[in-house]
Amino acid sequence: MPTDRLSQTFAALADPTRRAILARLSTGEATVNELAEPFEMSLPAVSKHLKVLEHAGLISRGREAQWRPARLQAEPLKDVSDWLETYRRFWEASFARLDALIEELKQKQPKPEKK
Amino acid sequence: MPTDRLSQTFAALADPTRRAILARLSTGEATVNELAEPFEMSLPAVSKHLKVLEHAGLISRGREAQWRPARLQAEPLKDVSDWLETYRRFWEASFARLDALIEELKQKQPKPEKK
Repeated sequence: MPTDRLSQTFAALADPTRRAILARLSTGEATVNELAEPFEMSLPAVSKHLKVLEHAGLISRGREAQWRPARLQAEPLKDVSDWLETYRRFWEASFARLDALIEELKQKQPKPEKK
Repeated sequence: MPTDRLSQTFAALADPTRRAILARLSTGEATVNELAEPFEMSLPAVSKHLKVLEHAGLISRGREAQWRPARLQAEPLKDVSDWLETYRRFWEASFARLDALIEELKQKQPKPEKK
């Protein structure tokens, strides 16, 4: 497993079930039981995913031993957003090139004849 | 290895060397040799990282067999950015709460006495 914080965050996000758990938690905190139900997963499987998310700082757990509701912690996602910002101009540039290409193709199309 | 596209992107980004390679490529395309030098890595080690990045669609490689310069492809990063957008309100809210707390602490501090 990666040791630096940003790598830990990326590794935790590299799983569709863990991203679905975060999406569920974005609507409010939930217990392991509540999380297991919609995913049709065993409690140990959900617990394992929650441990990865907690280790990456993406969720926190309540203190009541029996329930321990999980809650979204979005701060590591801000670090991902900050890291991404450097690259924004690249994807914006590539979409701009695509737009220009589409415009060029439109210009080349024969114009409809006048009736 | 994860099979969905977004998970592949996150997994590829979960390594500080691969992120450093992307940062280098954001300044222009580079060959394996040029990439290996600053990282003091073996060519096979760099090649392995490039394969992960290429598989995730984060770089493309030139066609000349001998050089095959690598080039940044930022489109998958846009998907990460789109995915993150849902969570922006959470980290912005938590920083707003922190600001409010700091303001509250400031208010509670004893005012300096007038001389």
